[in-house]
Amino acid sequence: MSKAAGCRGFLHHVFDYETAKTLVIPHFGVGIVFRFTQLLVVLYVVGYVCVVQKGYQETDSVISTVTTKVKGFAYTNTSDMDPRMWDVADYVIPPQGDSSFFILTNLVVTPEQTQSHCPELPNPSTVCKDDCDCIEGYNDPRRNGIRTGLCENFSTTVKTCEVFSWCPLEVDTRLPKKALLAAAENFTVLIKNSITYPKFNFHGFKKHPASCGSRLSRDGSEGNCDLDWWAGKCLPKYSFRRLDSQNQDNDVAPGYNFRFAKFYKRADGVEERTLIKAYGIRFEVIVFGTAGKFGIVPAIVNLGAALSFLSLVPIVADWVMLTCMRKRDLYTKEKVTYLVESPDSEPVSMGTTYGTQ
Amino acid sequence: MSKAAGCRGFLHHVFDYETAKTLVIPHFGVGIVFRFTQLLVVLYVVGYVCVVQKGYQETDSVISTVTTKVKGFAYTNTSDMDPRMWDVADYVIPPQGDSSFFILTNLVVTPEQTQSHCPELPNPSTVCKDDCDCIEGYNDPRRNGIRTGLCENFSTTVKTCEVFSWCPLEVDTRLPKKALLAAAENFTVLIKNSITYPKFNFHGFKKHPASCGSRLSRDGSEGNCDLDWWAGKCLPKYSFRRLDSQNQDNDVAPGYNFRFAKFYKRADGVEERTLIKAYGIRFEVIVFGTAGKFGIVPAIVNLGAALSFLSLVPIVADWVMLTCMRKRDLYTKEKVTYLVESPDSEPVSMGTTYGTQ
Amino acid sequence: MSKAAGCRGFLHHVFDYETAKTLVIPHFGVGIVFRFTQLLVVLYVVGYVCVVQKGYQETDSVISTVTTKVKGFAYTNTSDMDPRMWDVADYVIPPQGDSSFFILTNLVVTPEQTQSHCPELPNPSTVCKDDCDCIEGYNDPRRNGIRTGLCENFSTTVKTCEVFSWCPLEVDTRLPKKALLAAAENFTVLIKNSITYPKFNFHGFKKHPASCGSRLSRDGSEGNCDLDWWAGKCLPKYSFRRLDSQNQDNDVAPGYNFRFAKFYKRADGVEERTLIKAYGIRFEVIVFGTAGKFGIVPAIVNLGAALSFLSLVPIVADWVMLTCMRKRDLYTKEKVTYLVESPDSEPVSMGTTYGTQ
Repeated sequence: MSKAAGCRGFLHHVFDYETAKTLVIPHFGVGIVFRFTQLLVVLYVVGYVCVVQKGYQETDSVISTVTTKVKGFAYTNTSDMDPRMWDVADYVIPPQGDSSFFILTNLVVTPEQTQSHCPELPNPSTVCKDDCDCIEGYNDPRRNGIRTGLCENFSTTVKTCEVFSWCPLEVDTRLPKKALLAAAENFTVLIKNSITYPKFNFHGFKKHPASCGSRLSRDGSEGNCDLDWWAGKCLPKYSFRRLDSQNQDNDVAPGYNFRFAKFYKRADGVEERTLIKAYGIRFEVIVFGTAGKFGIVPAIVNLGAALSFLSLVPIVADWVMLTCMRKRDLYTKEKVTYLVESPDSEPVSMGTTYGTQ
Repeated sequence: MSKAAGCRGFLHHVFDYETAKTLVIPHFGVGIVFRFTQLLVVLYVVGYVCVVQKGYQETDSVISTVTTKVKGFAYTNTSDMDPRMWDVADYVIPPQGDSSFFILTNLVVTPEQTQSHCPELPNPSTVCKDDCDCIEGYNDPRRNGIRTGLCENFSTTVKTCEVFSWCPLEVDTRLPKKALLAAAENFTVLIKNSITYPKFNFHGFKKHPASCGSRLSRDGSEGNCDLDWWAGKCLPKYSFRRLDSQNQDNDVAPGYNFRFAKFYKRADGVEERTLIKAYGIRFEVIVFGTAGKFGIVPAIVNLGAALSFLSLVPIVADWVMLTCMRKRDLYTKEKVTYLVESPDSEPVSMGTTYGTQ
Repeated sequence: MSKAAGCRGFLHHVFDYETAKTLVIPHFGVGIVFRFTQLLVVLYVVGYVCVVQKGYQETDSVISTVTTKVKGFAYTNTSDMDPRMWDVADYVIPPQGDSSFFILTNLVVTPEQTQSHCPELPNPSTVCKDDCDCIEGYNDPRRNGIRTGLCENFSTTVKTCEVFSWCPLEVDTRLPKKALLAAAENFTVLIKNSITYPKFNFHGFKKHPASCGSRLSRDGSEGNCDLDWWAGKCLPKYSFRRLDSQNQDNDVAPGYNFRFAKFYKRADGVEERTLIKAYGIRFEVIVFGTAGKFGIVPAIVNLGAALSFLSLVPIVADWVMLTCMRKRDLYTKEKVTYLVESPDSEPVSMGTTYGTQ
């Protein structure tokens, strides 16, 4: 073969167009089946995947920063304490309004603690008869301090080992039954929420007043964002979660609590502290949401999947045509050529024996 | 039909290979159209979806932990206060450098508050003529304390209801006009940022100095991660957002502020506090970013979508061939067989009447 | 053409069914190749993409809120300080157990600081000979205060410029070598972790005790969620990251530290503070995880991609048939019709010259 002929052959190979031979069946029933199946696929893919599920959209998760501000005060007048007015600087801990904030509702105060010696709280492992029961330097992390080796009178009837610690020790069993700051339910919270969808360069800002009572412990649900149409539809969801878990199953120690101290210095220079075991409600303002916007990659991928399903339609129509139609033998004969591989013989249309099985 | 014949029939059904009959058109124009359309699809899918949009990658969002450290001090000397030097322990609240930190720039100090009685600030609802105007125990959460029932002199000209509260009450209208700690603009912030992409088990670490002035309020933009090629390309975006919202539209109460108190104990044991209404700048160091890495599922899905589009190419080429070419009648006659369903008659090639419509 | 005929033509155009003409090759080898290739694609797509990679699932990222509670105490007895017992209210800063908490292990205490004058710490830029070396009002943010213009004796041998600042100044070079609160390693941390997958409306709750020692600095790995089958499989990953970065490469100032102050008021009304430079371990409890659940869009997209690959199978089988088989010339002749465009001539099957190239 000459070079020119080879080149022409290659060009023919590349640029000859090979197309499928087709048979047109002018049968209304088969046509209806074909078009109807096609319609179903298009409706499903376009209607459900595109319109309902918005498969053509890229998504991005919200990034938010939350500031909160609590307003309100409470007045307490119990036998344990002097009458006292509590304002924001007293009961919001820490004072700066973050997405997570704690509202004090009850407390055990242990005032005037100093680094000194005192007998431990009575308990099977701390009660003693004489100094021999108390090993000096014994240091049990579940107890309250380091033992001095002495056995002292805790009360007129009980002796316990003396410890070096912040004395007097806290007795947290005398927690006021009724929430001291029951008024906390009526405090109001102003939530400022600044949101960003970094992928779409969308920024938003929202204010939202709430009450610390029932409304804050409910979940909000304000939908997600569709940035394709209008930004006004973009409302991230709030979830106000009370971390003291009202659900008792989840919680061995009911109520959220933690200890903190206020430190003072006496006139004689000795450091003293007021230990506070604070019980209360810890709120977490959780903001979540997803924004969607037209994206070329998900759009192409979804369109590609739709086209794939359309390629299944002829299989269904062929099956109907070759199986259910009255003239199926004729259709099979015309559509399918059965190659008979006897030497020298020409192939014959023998679809009748094949296509109808 | 015998069992052996049935089995042979089934084997034929499964293993006979049914292939499409094709017609080769040695027409350069049609071939060009076909190859060119094919090329367009391949270029688009490979070039745009794969190279530009990196559709073959799985993505993961950054998880980061941020620590910040502010450096600098400020000196104030105003008529309201003694000269004072402010250092980090004074103006960064809370002191521990979190991703969110607050720098004090202005403040209203109310020193020596104690739990006691004092007349309310004058206001249409608090001004009184005699004790009858002040209901004892009246407790309005928008006011400052619980009423004692007395009407006292607030000044020589005005009488207001007395309340039990932290007295004297805060007068926050006398906020210094000029920011007290204007020097805050020159403070520097060192940001340490530790990032993780958990799906790809990638860990990174970065330091970043900034100034509290103009630079911190601008957005950073340092791109995203491509973990396929080299990790050096992996720079999450920083966004420094000032939560005091310089945009006045978003903000009814301009400036971010909150109240906190320092508690003291007097020599006589009475608790007193200094209430501070702190105005300032709250920064949130927000780190976002997305890392991408080759993933088998997105790669397959994108390749599948590309193949689907290639299956559209013959439709385009066929349309050109059967509509625009000079010899379209010949092509149609050869490609399409029109089944004439007259009884006993053989089908004839009648594409001329069909394909050109 | 009459209107009725035109309408009939249009109906024919829409509802005539055009199907591909096919050729059946009853050759076992080709059939095997075809079926085997088909099987490979199905196995790969179904087995790998669906079963292993769970491509049919929508995913959602965890949203979690963490509370932590540290237990334990430490006893210190060094020459610098009086013997002291440290409990939670002393060494956990801030006291409220957040996802991020700091445990004090070492500290530099500077007690009894007041706003006053004192000579700076000696340093090439602060040492002076007489008052001329010290410019009054000079204010270097890297130094400790504002210069008064005097040159004072820092010690018997060195004179430094006097500054107005919180005096005496902190000397943080005398950091105790051995961690003061070495006992911190034995503190226990109780982690409560409340998780949500908002897209799937799944809520979970988990408790997890840990020690501040070795176990907390290791990474946990407890897998992700498969919400399709059972919720018990849904365990988000914990990552306990020590932000003091034991990796020395990443850290110029080894150890995480920050400064805070306790404020006191003297009997004479002067405010004094104890400045504490706190060294310690900052823990971040990071919770990440992904939940997957059957989703219609990813399922359709993955199925579509699978179908696309199946459309490649006949190309493989045709290539084998027309290239490798003994009777390839016969197959080509039957399958491919080569259109010869000589005027008036009928096309002939000439696949022999085309298909085998």
